[in-house]
Amino acid sequence: MGKCLNHPERETSYICMKHNIYLCEECLECRDPEIYCKFRSSCPIYFISKKGFEKSETEDKTESIDKECTVVFEPGCHTVKVLKGTTLLEASKKADIYINASCNGKGSCGKCKLIMESGSVDSDKTALLSDREKERGYLLACQSRVKEDTVVRIPEETIEKKLKTAGMGEAATKKLSGLVDKIDPILQRVSLELDLPTLQDTVSDLDRLRRELKKLGYDTSRMGTNIRVIRQITNAVRDDHFKVVASVLFRKCSSEIVDVSPSAHNHKKFLGMAIDLGTTSIVVYIVDMADGSVLSAASGHNSQAACGDDVINRIVCSEKDGVGKLKKMAISTINNLTTMALASINTDYKQIDNIAISGNTIMTHLLLGIDPRYIRREPYIPTASEFPVIQAGEIGLKAAPYAGLFVMPGPASYVGGDIVAGVLYTGFHRSRELTLFIDIGTNGEIVLGNNEFLMTAACSAGPAFEGGGIRWGMRAEEGAIEKISLDPENFKPEYVTIDNKLARGICGSGMIDLLSEMLLKGVIGQDGKFRIEPDHPRMVMFNGELAFIIEYAEHIDSEEDIIFTQSDIRSLILSKAAVFAGFNILLEQVGMDFSSIEQMIITGGFGQYLDIEKAITIGLLPDIEREKFRYMGNSSIAGAYMALLSGRFRKEAMQISNSMTYLDFSSSHKFMEEFTRAQFLPHTDLKLFPGVKLITSISSQS
Amino acid sequence: MGKCLNHPERETSYICMKHNIYLCEECLECRDPEIYCKFRSSCPIYFISKKGFEKSETEDKTESIDKECTVVFEPGCHTVKVLKGTTLLEASKKADIYINASCNGKGSCGKCKLIMESGSVDSDKTALLSDREKERGYLLACQSRVKEDTVVRIPEETIEKKLKTAGMGEAATKKLSGLVDKIDPILQRVSLELDLPTLQDTVSDLDRLRRELKKLGYDTSRMGTNIRVIRQITNAVRDDHFKVVASVLFRKCSSEIVDVSPSAHNHKKFLGMAIDLGTTSIVVYIVDMADGSVLSAASGHNSQAACGDDVINRIVCSEKDGVGKLKKMAISTINNLTTMALASINTDYKQIDNIAISGNTIMTHLLLGIDPRYIRREPYIPTASEFPVIQAGEIGLKAAPYAGLFVMPGPASYVGGDIVAGVLYTGFHRSRELTLFIDIGTNGEIVLGNNEFLMTAACSAGPAFEGGGIRWGMRAEEGAIEKISLDPENFKPEYVTIDNKLARGICGSGMIDLLSEMLLKGVIGQDGKFRIEPDHPRMVMFNGELAFIIEYAEHIDSEEDIIFTQSDIRSLILSKAAVFAGFNILLEQVGMDFSSIEQMIITGGFGQYLDIEKAITIGLLPDIEREKFRYMGNSSIAGAYMALLSGRFRKEAMQISNSMTYLDFSSSHKFMEEFTRAQFLPHTDLKLFPGVKLITSISSQS
Repeated sequence: MGKCLNHPERETSYICMKHNIYLCEECLECRDPEIYCKFRSSCPIYFISKKGFEKSETEDKTESIDKECTVVFEPGCHTVKVLKGTTLLEASKKADIYINASCNGKGSCGKCKLIMESGSVDSDKTALLSDREKERGYLLACQSRVKEDTVVRIPEETIEKKLKTAGMGEAATKKLSGLVDKIDPILQRVSLELDLPTLQDTVSDLDRLRRELKKLGYDTSRMGTNIRVIRQITNAVRDDHFKVVASVLFRKCSSEIVDVSPSAHNHKKFLGMAIDLGTTSIVVYIVDMADGSVLSAASGHNSQAACGDDVINRIVCSEKDGVGKLKKMAISTINNLTTMALASINTDYKQIDNIAISGNTIMTHLLLGIDPRYIRREPYIPTASEFPVIQAGEIGLKAAPYAGLFVMPGPASYVGGDIVAGVLYTGFHRSRELTLFIDIGTNGEIVLGNNEFLMTAACSAGPAFEGGGIRWGMRAEEGAIEKISLDPENFKPEYVTIDNKLARGICGSGMIDLLSEMLLKGVIGQDGKFRIEPDHPRMVMFNGELAFIIEYAEHIDSEEDIIFTQSDIRSLILSKAAVFAGFNILLEQVGMDFSSIEQMIITGGFGQYLDIEKAITIGLLPDIEREKFRYMGNSSIAGAYMALLSGRFRKEAMQISNSMTYLDFSSSHKFMEEFTRAQFLPHTDLKLFPGVKLITSISSQS
Repeated sequence: MGKCLNHPERETSYICMKHNIYLCEECLECRDPEIYCKFRSSCPIYFISKKGFEKSETEDKTESIDKECTVVFEPGCHTVKVLKGTTLLEASKKADIYINASCNGKGSCGKCKLIMESGSVDSDKTALLSDREKERGYLLACQSRVKEDTVVRIPEETIEKKLKTAGMGEAATKKLSGLVDKIDPILQRVSLELDLPTLQDTVSDLDRLRRELKKLGYDTSRMGTNIRVIRQITNAVRDDHFKVVASVLFRKCSSEIVDVSPSAHNHKKFLGMAIDLGTTSIVVYIVDMADGSVLSAASGHNSQAACGDDVINRIVCSEKDGVGKLKKMAISTINNLTTMALASINTDYKQIDNIAISGNTIMTHLLLGIDPRYIRREPYIPTASEFPVIQAGEIGLKAAPYAGLFVMPGPASYVGGDIVAGVLYTGFHRSRELTLFIDIGTNGEIVLGNNEFLMTAACSAGPAFEGGGIRWGMRAEEGAIEKISLDPENFKPEYVTIDNKLARGICGSGMIDLLSEMLLKGVIGQDGKFRIEPDHPRMVMFNGELAFIIEYAEHIDSEEDIIFTQSDIRSLILSKAAVFAGFNILLEQVGMDFSSIEQMIITGGFGQYLDIEKAITIGLLPDIEREKFRYMGNSSIAGAYMALLSGRFRKEAMQISNSMTYLDFSSSHKFMEEFTRAQFLPHTDLKLFPGVKLITSISSQS
């Protein structure tokens, strides 16, 4: 325990692992660097650890050992037995039910709402539920400890919605066609017809196989095998008269026969799988390895989200519960998506022989069961940045157990394989054009460069663009407001939701639209503060602060109005400021400014709905010629797809990763200055945004 | 069922898998080619399968399900629960008790004697127990089915005796010193002091390790690793301030980091293990990898012997009970020997990082869990003749789990890694001298060649030289008669036993001595038939045939006289004839005869007691200049030792295996002719044995 830096009267057990500063819970939630740690927005290591946490955990267990309770989650009647004292969030994890829990059970995000149907729980007080919600039996899963047999209902807003997947296969095929001209996967299947053994030709089964492979031009001198395959060969060659299919896995400088099956049993398709392993969502493509077409696709939430929205919380969770738990969560999400994607093409998972996966460094470590703990401790060292080719069975992925798995390399702790995949796909590392690349997610990873150099950095954009820390923020799911404009007279919003469902919240692109509209229509000033009267019909007080009403509860069959609070605006401004400061510092490092940029590439799941003009208006993107911008959508999955199919691209990915120079912003004072200057809409220095014509810059000053 | 080839009045369920001939049990026991299968002695595939065997097995189980009985084996009070109807032999296997069972429970060898102490069993009738034995409660374990709770005693003669091991380490060091000049094991340990990571040097732990290895001159471009090691690295590097010991395993054309441990925890020795995996006995050497000295050694019986003496019975057993069972038996024997050998030097098995193992092709297949079934079916194809470097943990050997295991390659189904090891050790493949090499065991493997060619063949010598099928035959264990001579007047034997214990039987060298003495002293003629009167004090009738009394029961505290029967003589003659015919055919193939031989090397556990002169007298070895003979003892373990220490020798072993030309005798009519001609003492053609002066050749003809 120690005294809070900002509130010395408060004892707290939370400590910043990097700067060794104690902070109370209030400061912890806050993202304003003036209030607590000035490094926070540039520092990807903003995690605050609760000292002595593990001890209290043990105590809890001791006191609750006496009684086991049954918890039923409706709809679906998912039943699980837990010890008395277990939180409903933990119970849901045990029951394999996905509940949104952005803050990893800290009780600060208010997303894990449940409705009590019968039984009772001990619930901690929370300001995150409205009185109306409390009356109707709402509670927060992470703050409610089971006392007896209990039935709870997962309300509509807490149930996981499917991400948009319809037509993804066709769309992907269209997007990706022509990218790969020569298909040479990491695992190749070779049909062989061996000479029948005779008394005159008694070489062993294995040598017979190798002899045939050699005849076909394979370099058998560098081709090994393993004991499992040798055990297989005996019967495999004899089951179909010495006609077999051998699967050869190509590693860095050698190859290995990893499977031998009788030809007769081998009518199977030759499928591959490209995976984008995102912190928030995971995308799976099933690819026909013969022609590269994407046969089907699926995407869904990474079930690790139950351990928190951001990578730091995931690391903390892995330190507490073991890496194995997080590994299992990722694997099970992928396996579920694989099953979904395969079901639509009526195919068995054993037909998948090749896999390529891209994810950030932390996701990759967790997937492979590698301890990521030192990634969040200075000097932020990952265990590995390149990975050997492994086999699906080694980590439990649903595929042929011998399937080759290529893991996209990542150059640094906070710039990972997803960014390398992005560069690979967008291809600017092959061009002379100076390119500024950004992938916007929880971390904003930036790459600046061309065919001569690649510099990269990460800035902690925070989860705001993905809905984290925003009262009605949500991911780009069904019912999310993705486009919005305000009536200049009465500020009445006109909006579009994803799949045209009733509005359930607002996603990143919607927030950028809203912020830009509010700024342009004079609802807020350049400092982000509300400029219209508090008694305006669209304004309301919420938890002691002003908020803008986006939609009234009665229009959307909800308990509450959808609002956008002053804090929400502040969070969004801090996020965009971190990204913009990142651009600036990276350019400065190479002695350039925005005018040198010949191309600006924006990627990320977020990017596909982004209105560039409005993003410039709020100062998230630089005010450069609009034709220089390119939206590239999810470039991580596209890069994984390329690596899946092509040895040339796998090699290129290695080269990209190796040639990237990583800049660490977390101890840069210049970054802090830039960050502070960018906390204005669009910026304190309006000369940087000549194209942004602010009506409000006049009206608010008048 | 079918009619016996030789006794059409008899229905039999035994069929030769190769020649598709039905044979009754009597024919089955007999090794005389005139009586049944003329190919048998040249055919390594002499196994006779009992059709419908598995079905009756199932029936047995059904009827015995109702009752469980306790069987206690004394001495030692080993207790096991089995179902009623289980044989005592099966019960002993379940209790992990070693009982000699040469014939794999067929009831034909009479070696698995037990004494009933209490309880009762259903015993089949057997002629293999004398009336005196039956009176005293003797029974055959394989022919006795448990009816109720039973206590049996393992008599002295059935208990496994330790093979001679005292001083083996020192003797081996003396024998092997100087063989290897440069030690470069397959797994190398490298001590590394990594640069400490800083914000300026943030490469991953793995890259940091590889960077240091590269500095030390290792070719890291061909060095891979695996996911298990990557998981290890995170904490391994940090446990002792980035000082680690990396273990690098060198494969054919690449290397792999297989372990990383903190230096501080790595005070361990660097040990290796050489293993001779014999069908009958297994020898283990513990080797100091720093200087090549043999620190300790142990040898013992391969516990697979419970499944029969010869490799064919082992294959049959693996087909019936699964390869896994035989694999486990071999592994557990090796692990027990390892434990014994390490106990004497007070060392833990985890210090063993390197292993080299040599065994015949069947033993190797079984050890690695590879199905050997096609080895005994025409055209006799092994699954593999070369094996990848595997890790001890993959097959459960007691050693560091990542320890590198080099398995000696073997060129053919019936010429295996033990013979390659023998050639490697004796080194004649490097010399111009034309050499005839023989390893005498159950199979006699012969190699003819020099630095220009290597031809090899196997002939089924049969288990006689190892005591199999001989009434009082035994292995070279404590109490075995290993040297013997006969008084020319009264034929009273004078003999020496191993370790000077009371005589318990006669081993191979003793039998050769005895046969030679009987021939030279006129007890038998050149045809092997007894020439002295049946009423001579040293003659007795046994089971309807004449036998020579080697020792009277009362002199050795036994129930029975030690005798040598007419059948025993016949078996021995057939065995030696098969070997000699093998020599002849092999020479003929290259257009040579015995006079071309410049060197004759004899190896095998058997060889160390062999009296060359007497072996020539009976026609087992050719009558060439005595100075051309070299006894090389156990060359299999010596070759394994060399491969353990030296990369050059591992490569040489591969070359030997690849350059061997294998001749299959089993369909050779010439072999049959030679075999028939050699069934005389020493041979039908005495011109081949000018040095053998037979007193009896006069006396028997007079």
